Amino acid sequence: MSYIAMNRFKIRPGRTADFEDIWKSRESKLKELKGFREFRLLKGPETEGHTLYSSHVLWDSREDFEAWTKSQQFRDSHRNAGKREGESPIMGHPQFEGFETVLHEA
Amino acid sequence: MSYIAMNRFKIRPGRTADFEDIWKSRESKLKELKGFREFRLLKGPETEGHTLYSSHVLWDSREDFEAWTKSQQFRDSHRNAGKREGESPIMGHPQFEGFETVLHEA
Repeated sequence: MSYIAMNRFKIRPGRTADFEDIWKSRESKLKELKGFREFRLLKGPETEGHTLYSSHVLWDSREDFEAWTKSQQFRDSHRNAGKREGESPIMGHPQFEGFETVLHEA
Repeated sequence: MSYIAMNRFKIRPGRTADFEDIWKSRESKLKELKGFREFRLLKGPETEGHTLYSSHVLWDSREDFEAWTKSQQFRDSHRNAGKREGESPIMGHPQFEGFETVLHEA
């Protein structure tokens, strides 16, 4: 059953372009991964003090996602996280949520 | 730019099957709607006191989603919401969040 791995990010006021640039300029190797189907970076509502973003990765199964989190590609892609100069556009830590697909219509 | 309309639901302990049945037994007319691409009901983490679910509807654009919320189909599909007998499996109100796609890889 397909699985969606989401992270929710709170972005500081005035820093949404910086945050998007990090994603746009990254070297993505998702397409090489077993079970990868689709990635989306989503811009959500602006609330008091921040703008909500969410990253969605659709996998064939939870097992494919978990295999990726134990892979060298995962370690490589997270190696530079949090090592940029200056204040991060992200407030606090991203909030991870994993979801199993119960129903699907397309 | 594609748009995802999400609702987050907190489901009472022991009531997840009831909640899923409501969705599985409903008569969906989403495929008739202009700009509709994809629907998913997603089961997320179980935390203190509830299980999180999320419904995702992918639209061609925010405008297509907004047109649907003003349509007769929308009124019909929400007519019976909250009118079932007994205690609802849903705690409180669903939390709506709308998201614009910033990046997409598939």
